[in-house]
Amino acid sequence: MAGTRAEAAARGGRLAADGEPIAVIAGAGGLPEAIAQALKARGREVLVVAIDGAADREFGGTSTIHLPIGAAGRLLECLRANDCAEVVIAGQFHRPRFSDIEFDLGTLKLALSSLLRLRFGGDDQVVSRIVEMFEAEGFRIVGPQEAVPELISASGPYGRARPSEDARADIQTGAAAIRHMAPLDVGQAVVVHSRRIIGVEAAEGTNAMILRCGELRANGRLNASAPSGVLVKMPKPGQELRLEMPVIGPDTVRAARQAGLAGLAVEAGGVVVVDRSELVELADEAGLFVVGF
Amino acid sequence: MAGTRAEAAARGGRLAADGEPIAVIAGAGGLPEAIAQALKARGREVLVVAIDGAADREFGGTSTIHLPIGAAGRLLECLRANDCAEVVIAGQFHRPRFSDIEFDLGTLKLALSSLLRLRFGGDDQVVSRIVEMFEAEGFRIVGPQEAVPELISASGPYGRARPSEDARADIQTGAAAIRHMAPLDVGQAVVVHSRRIIGVEAAEGTNAMILRCGELRANGRLNASAPSGVLVKMPKPGQELRLEMPVIGPDTVRAARQAGLAGLAVEAGGVVVVDRSELVELADEAGLFVVGF
Repeated sequence: MAGTRAEAAARGGRLAADGEPIAVIAGAGGLPEAIAQALKARGREVLVVAIDGAADREFGGTSTIHLPIGAAGRLLECLRANDCAEVVIAGQFHRPRFSDIEFDLGTLKLALSSLLRLRFGGDDQVVSRIVEMFEAEGFRIVGPQEAVPELISASGPYGRARPSEDARADIQTGAAAIRHMAPLDVGQAVVVHSRRIIGVEAAEGTNAMILRCGELRANGRLNASAPSGVLVKMPKPGQELRLEMPVIGPDTVRAARQAGLAGLAVEAGGVVVVDRSELVELADEAGLFVVGF
Repeated sequence: MAGTRAEAAARGGRLAADGEPIAVIAGAGGLPEAIAQALKARGREVLVVAIDGAADREFGGTSTIHLPIGAAGRLLECLRANDCAEVVIAGQFHRPRFSDIEFDLGTLKLALSSLLRLRFGGDDQVVSRIVEMFEAEGFRIVGPQEAVPELISASGPYGRARPSEDARADIQTGAAAIRHMAPLDVGQAVVVHSRRIIGVEAAEGTNAMILRCGELRANGRLNASAPSGVLVKMPKPGQELRLEMPVIGPDTVRAARQAGLAGLAVEAGGVVVVDRSELVELADEAGLFVVGF
């Protein structure tokens, strides 16, 4: 029975054996599909729960059900019916409006009090409430670093280009800035140019932030030839990595190329690298460095 | 002789008497003209030095000369020739490329060593070098708070609308965030929504940051009806207010209205409010609050 297995997994803290079912609750972007594919390659039986209005990719060849974001009761039923004691939550979810929540029985029982407490504060508070909600029901939330460690950033260069001494100093500046901003719940990524932080990501997403740093060059606010400047992306100290691990992928390299950056740096062990071979190919084509630090 | 008067002013630290000449070195935006007009209203004789590629407004009825940004020698000559011991530097200047600097004799003598030290680091370092450079030549850099205190933000509401309790909490969140980010030399302004920081200004400028927060609503990343969210703008603790005082004006209100914000909050005594009457009129029309805290 799923409940029993879920409880065992939660108690033991071990990843369930190969072949056992696991659910991927899918938000927007390519991460959920990348995780589902990696899990299948490891022999896991995967159920994708695509969240309406969030999940925006196809999950070809993987069992998929669709649910609205507020349907916690139906979600839990579905996880139990499919014997999924472990759950990966991946992709972007926009914070729902109250009026968008479907108040089914499960939601009312489980989530209303949590949701009421979610009304204020940054994302950190949202994600920790979500983990608590699942754990209270005996499920185990598994992060990508545990479920699919082969997707996690390694130390050293990806591809052929290497950061210059100047770029390495910018990486240090960016990493220090992200650490400093951690209590503010902003700054998962920054763009640094000659030790100056020229872009800070808040709610707009990494690619939008990268692209606007490119516009600074076009509109004269950044007076420096491309390629120059570095994207630095890493988790905040204390970030709940099971639920909101930073991600880079081919689109990040495309945005960086468009913005004229010299390269991308991610903290080793702290970032999911989606479609690594395509990412490396694009970076090599563009002469961009991608490095784990 | 100008040098003598400059030295006297620098020694005494007092603002020169009404009627005495003062220079406004003008960068982009409406601030230089607003300061020039306010100085003239106080009876000062004003010389505008419009910097090529930066100053982008007309200075009708005010003596104006045009100089490239690197022409420090000609600038100093011109200030001396016009008997301007006091200098206000106002408006936005983009950091020049090395190749854009006109290396006249004055620049070589004065600025080359400073410029070489400017190559790395945030804006704070740039502005303190500029102040040092002028002071070394016996001029006095006067900030807007000293030259035209009538333009500086007051405490309390501007216009009719008042911040809600919710908005007041967002103002506190924003102010705390800006103070926290001070060492990073970013975050002169933030947009806060329900205690969450959804936009941080780095090199892109306040209005661009406000407008992208509006786009978050359009693209679903911010799931909340307009009007909501607050722009908070204030100097960083320790910011050199003589050279880079934060500014709001009618365009800030226009951007905030377009982005669907509930209002604007500025630290009392720390921000220049340009075209106050137009700003209040626009805010009242839009139902936005503007408040000094």
